[in-house]
Amino acid sequence: MSRIPRDKDDDYSNDMAQQRRDFVREQTGVELKHTGSHSFDAADTRGNIEHFTGVCQIPLGLAGPLKVNGEHAQGDFYVPMTTTEGTLVGSYNRGMRLTREAGGITVSVVDDVMQRAPVFIFANAREARDFGDWVEANMDAIRATAEATTSIGKLEFVQQFAAARFRYLRFNYTTGDAAGQNMCGRATREACRWIADNYPGPMERWVLSGNMDTDKKHSQLNTLYSRGKRVVAECVIPDAVLQQVMHVSTKQFSVQRGISNIGAMLAGSSNNGSHAANGIASVFIATGQDEANVAESQSAIVHSELTEAGDLYYSITLPSLIVATHGGGTGLPTQRECLEMMDCFGKGKARKLAEIIGATVLCGELSLGAAVLADEWVSSHEQYGRNR
Amino acid sequence: MSRIPRDKDDDYSNDMAQQRRDFVREQTGVELKHTGSHSFDAADTRGNIEHFTGVCQIPLGLAGPLKVNGEHAQGDFYVPMTTTEGTLVGSYNRGMRLTREAGGITVSVVDDVMQRAPVFIFANAREARDFGDWVEANMDAIRATAEATTSIGKLEFVQQFAAARFRYLRFNYTTGDAAGQNMCGRATREACRWIADNYPGPMERWVLSGNMDTDKKHSQLNTLYSRGKRVVAECVIPDAVLQQVMHVSTKQFSVQRGISNIGAMLAGSSNNGSHAANGIASVFIATGQDEANVAESQSAIVHSELTEAGDLYYSITLPSLIVATHGGGTGLPTQRECLEMMDCFGKGKARKLAEIIGATVLCGELSLGAAVLADEWVSSHEQYGRNR
Amino acid sequence: MSRIPRDKDDDYSNDMAQQRRDFVREQTGVELKHTGSHSFDAADTRGNIEHFTGVCQIPLGLAGPLKVNGEHAQGDFYVPMTTTEGTLVGSYNRGMRLTREAGGITVSVVDDVMQRAPVFIFANAREARDFGDWVEANMDAIRATAEATTSIGKLEFVQQFAAARFRYLRFNYTTGDAAGQNMCGRATREACRWIADNYPGPMERWVLSGNMDTDKKHSQLNTLYSRGKRVVAECVIPDAVLQQVMHVSTKQFSVQRGISNIGAMLAGSSNNGSHAANGIASVFIATGQDEANVAESQSAIVHSELTEAGDLYYSITLPSLIVATHGGGTGLPTQRECLEMMDCFGKGKARKLAEIIGATVLCGELSLGAAVLADEWVSSHEQYGRNR
Amino acid sequence: MSRIPRDKDDDYSNDMAQQRRDFVREQTGVELKHTGSHSFDAADTRGNIEHFTGVCQIPLGLAGPLKVNGEHAQGDFYVPMTTTEGTLVGSYNRGMRLTREAGGITVSVVDDVMQRAPVFIFANAREARDFGDWVEANMDAIRATAEATTSIGKLEFVQQFAAARFRYLRFNYTTGDAAGQNMCGRATREACRWIADNYPGPMERWVLSGNMDTDKKHSQLNTLYSRGKRVVAECVIPDAVLQQVMHVSTKQFSVQRGISNIGAMLAGSSNNGSHAANGIASVFIATGQDEANVAESQSAIVHSELTEAGDLYYSITLPSLIVATHGGGTGLPTQRECLEMMDCFGKGKARKLAEIIGATVLCGELSLGAAVLADEWVSSHEQYGRNR
Repeated sequence: MSRIPRDKDDDYSNDMAQQRRDFVREQTGVELKHTGSHSFDAADTRGNIEHFTGVCQIPLGLAGPLKVNGEHAQGDFYVPMTTTEGTLVGSYNRGMRLTREAGGITVSVVDDVMQRAPVFIFANAREARDFGDWVEANMDAIRATAEATTSIGKLEFVQQFAAARFRYLRFNYTTGDAAGQNMCGRATREACRWIADNYPGPMERWVLSGNMDTDKKHSQLNTLYSRGKRVVAECVIPDAVLQQVMHVSTKQFSVQRGISNIGAMLAGSSNNGSHAANGIASVFIATGQDEANVAESQSAIVHSELTEAGDLYYSITLPSLIVATHGGGTGLPTQRECLEMMDCFGKGKARKLAEIIGATVLCGELSLGAAVLADEWVSSHEQYGRNR
Repeated sequence: MSRIPRDKDDDYSNDMAQQRRDFVREQTGVELKHTGSHSFDAADTRGNIEHFTGVCQIPLGLAGPLKVNGEHAQGDFYVPMTTTEGTLVGSYNRGMRLTREAGGITVSVVDDVMQRAPVFIFANAREARDFGDWVEANMDAIRATAEATTSIGKLEFVQQFAAARFRYLRFNYTTGDAAGQNMCGRATREACRWIADNYPGPMERWVLSGNMDTDKKHSQLNTLYSRGKRVVAECVIPDAVLQQVMHVSTKQFSVQRGISNIGAMLAGSSNNGSHAANGIASVFIATGQDEANVAESQSAIVHSELTEAGDLYYSITLPSLIVATHGGGTGLPTQRECLEMMDCFGKGKARKLAEIIGATVLCGELSLGAAVLADEWVSSHEQYGRNR
Repeated sequence: MSRIPRDKDDDYSNDMAQQRRDFVREQTGVELKHTGSHSFDAADTRGNIEHFTGVCQIPLGLAGPLKVNGEHAQGDFYVPMTTTEGTLVGSYNRGMRLTREAGGITVSVVDDVMQRAPVFIFANAREARDFGDWVEANMDAIRATAEATTSIGKLEFVQQFAAARFRYLRFNYTTGDAAGQNMCGRATREACRWIADNYPGPMERWVLSGNMDTDKKHSQLNTLYSRGKRVVAECVIPDAVLQQVMHVSTKQFSVQRGISNIGAMLAGSSNNGSHAANGIASVFIATGQDEANVAESQSAIVHSELTEAGDLYYSITLPSLIVATHGGGTGLPTQRECLEMMDCFGKGKARKLAEIIGATVLCGELSLGAAVLADEWVSSHEQYGRNR
Repeated sequence: MSRIPRDKDDDYSNDMAQQRRDFVREQTGVELKHTGSHSFDAADTRGNIEHFTGVCQIPLGLAGPLKVNGEHAQGDFYVPMTTTEGTLVGSYNRGMRLTREAGGITVSVVDDVMQRAPVFIFANAREARDFGDWVEANMDAIRATAEATTSIGKLEFVQQFAAARFRYLRFNYTTGDAAGQNMCGRATREACRWIADNYPGPMERWVLSGNMDTDKKHSQLNTLYSRGKRVVAECVIPDAVLQQVMHVSTKQFSVQRGISNIGAMLAGSSNNGSHAANGIASVFIATGQDEANVAESQSAIVHSELTEAGDLYYSITLPSLIVATHGGGTGLPTQRECLEMMDCFGKGKARKLAEIIGATVLCGELSLGAAVLADEWVSSHEQYGRNR
């Protein structure tokens, strides 16, 4: 039982990575040959990982062109998608064709906020409530303290939730083009320290998270109040186009929506659509997002209507899509290339990327929804997938 | 607005991948240099992706040794984790040290099942109910029909849910060492066809999914009835060990659990723990799992107790951990290497991998939980992460 | 601070009730005059209450005729409703007129089951899982033991749920025309004792409820698997009838359904309809049901569709409607009269009552839904209600 | 199929009530003798019911004294409880004895708010978002318009929720000592009319409820943001007192809390406690509350901790307890008597009543929780209940 090799002075070198692969071979007999085939320098991963040992190579495909009528993303885009699930790229590509022929997808970022949610602990509920009033009254100073820790983050509002002898505060920030979890953590910690130092009433103690952030997990709270970007993608598909491209009618789609809504309600689902996570995860990985944020981002609300003309208004609302175009994994070599091919790298691009992902997800919903209705779902997996 | 290049005869060639990268350069001006640096042949990705264009290289680190007392995984393991979030590998590694010093983690797979959930549509609820009775009475034939489509899948049971004039059936299968979604789709489609052909009563029609599967999304139904493996990881941490390694006491941990439970209840969370998705996503990507299944797999139930001796019984239950060691992305080059270094590649290994992931997740919960309590959370991100 | 008067020999006498009212007057100065005006003998309340002191008189109104096409309830019914909320009876009455003119309401009881859910506690999850297998294998003996305690209850199936080192069992019974909570408690206790005596493996202990019953509260589990009767009420309303009686079109109703579904999803509601609890609570009280079961019974799933002809298929599914026509408060004087006026008193009538309540609830949904759309909601409350 | 008798001029007379009872006898053969035995005049029910036909008489018992350390309720109270469930009053009474001996219950109203939630409909999500910004900017005028309709209601804040092309607004009011649903409806309707008249941008239409109110149903939104009073009841029970009165230890209670929490999480419950609905419904009916509000009010969060001394801190948070001491059914004869015996009738008393109910509910949790642990649950029902 040996410790993984580390180097106190320079742990992010190609040599250390090789030493770790050698260590794996010694310990397990397995040669990490492909894993060691990275096209960049180990030093580039500082700040992204510890014990850097190599890379995972995930296949990357293209889908598109995706026609987007956003406020930030306008025009046609080729979307890089990483996956190991056959049919995924093909299916999204098919949905992109459909929506292109329907005139493109309107996408809007309607909210934008990231959280950290400390908890303050008191002798009883009454003290906790009085503390809440004090926080409300001292919001300017709290905001100033939080914002002093960051040149980018802005504290938009602080929610309060009460139970037992606890007061849960949920700090909501805008974080520019970073996902911002760490920025929020730092700012909120300072705010809490200020609060603890200045609150004149009795208080037992505080903790930086009371589990209402809600980070790396789904919650109804995220669905209600957003986490990251809240994105709505909408389009109107003419019946003739739907029938030609997808072999189903707008009326069939509309009836199935009702059935799917009830299925989702019965199951207590985070998402009444089909598979938003597929599109989200595959673009997330390609573009250096935090892949664990699929946990929050997979939640969705699909809504459709038949228009007077019999066409299909179809929309998906992603209430907690967490994306960054700056910081995190966005600057790593392949990830940066993928962001750049959509002109989404760096500052001022996060909402653009959010719009592209929102539109992409909509295409996947239409494509899979149609495949299920046209009974082409299983057969396409038989044709394009591995026979798992 | 050009179409992405394809070759009808041989679309999975290195040349086609290069053509697509050239296409991207022409369309967007961006050179996909690193993306084109794959160490394997494009042909290896057939069945895993369409429009193969290159690879995403994600940094991979090692954590461990992880001491596991499973039924399938026994002994010490080095766990490959891909991520772009600084501190993640370090934090899991710290949790592994803690649990190692506490004697290791007991892990058990307590359920194992994959679903496809068609819906049958009738004139009214009464006909739907009578249909449900018939399905129950004809289960042997239904099972035989479903199982005839697969050499591996076994139909364990079929749940029925009623609303309006619909009958939602949820077919539950064991699928060996594959994740099994496609296997379940194929088998269920055949079963539905047989049902539609043989049911003597009136029926309008059926659709292969009524959205109760619940695939690529979280649901309470998954939490209740599992999807993929249901894994429980448990350990008992002596107070002295916790204090030494993590600088917090078992009593502090125990009090915080109550606070976190309430936070999760208030928020309507899919997970009353901290960040299971981090560990899951990073091992999923490294080992060729379907990354979109993070949507289901992130759900967790953490439970802890103080023992009579003042030590900490700590457990996490992952009700819908979807893993495969066969099929899907498991055979791709880096992914296979990562599976092999844990002796988890191929048939007969899926439960072993599930146990290792369950144990890994537990380590991450303990480590982050302690960091929050010891107020070391923000500072460790400042030290190891990018300043996002 | 005095104790409430009791009589060890005969606590259920008119005299004792008077003594208690006198006691209230002495302690608080308030004369319980109306409360003391009960038209029956105190002795009749034995088994229904302790410290009997008098009665609460709640106004009772009639709605109807309600046209029901059930399997047990067939024809026209006058429905007794107790309430103190002006417009409630009038609104339900209006919905009954609408559905009468539309040909009546089809109602079906599609499931019928009552629960008690003990928990068994083990050293770890693995032992808990093995116990679960043993329970499954010994189900015949468990059933026999449970059913030996009751001449009416039948143990239909036992669900198992696993988390941490616990095994939650959920015993599902049919209970004839009683609500059956106590019957289930008694039978399950005996079953648990038998299990504890006979299980050969290690077990720490068991408790009769692990909070998955889920009694006197809403749960997704109840919505999925029913508690009490699962009732679906359906009707098809011609557009012309809807417009004439309600001043809205079927198309308006249909569009609003989509909006209401999303509102309910966002809010995380137990019910995507309007106010099932109003109809349920008012008939529950009138007919001697356990009024606390409104907690479970209020959950509902509304589904509507426009037919090809432009008429409105409208349905409500009540997944956990708990009703009795025998035992509990059903034999009390006014309650019995109200049951009898619908021919719902005594054995063999519970499903009939469930159908009538289901149909009633549907009428209330249509009436309030229309009032909101026609902007007649506030004004009707101004006309008929107290100006609260 | 006859219409229920009405009198256009004077429908609220004893004579009309008799005519309706005669009508029932003619139609069904059932004599509503007890139902007709009301001790007050039919005219008193105007505004509370339509088609007044008589009364339902529900048995009423007393529990107490209940020792309350509230901000509004201070001292000992006898609590009137209506029920038909044997053991209910006795069980609450036992819990009151326990908490009395422990020094009483601290209760605090920590929030107080009632809602109406209209929805505004636009061509697309972007227009809906821009509308939301306008609403925020025009809040003063909106507030003034809403508050002009009521001398009591105050518009505290307006929440906004976005999905598809809809903007759901949720108006939150304080409503004095009335429950306030109608007050909120009226005020919000006027606000919406003002908004529709003054909004300069494009808007399709609005509807007074988009189903996010969430009225007469449970929702996570209510749990998060309160509906009616948010009440926390807390006490500390010495181990010796618990053992003497309840035959269980604080440690047993504490362990069971963990088990119950997980059961509730698994089930997706609105309440991790035992049976808050019992206490709430029985006091609601006795005191003229809207019994359908049990749907919202039943939600609860129980939290307990072992103190350093080994005593039991025990709390229940009721996030949506809807109570009134003015308007509605509070002025009816028996209801008023019951309010008066707690000095809770009329203006300025709603929070006092909320505190008493909160404390009562806590007693019921402790009593049933102990009975389950001490295995006295079934046997007490056998002794005091009807053998259902």
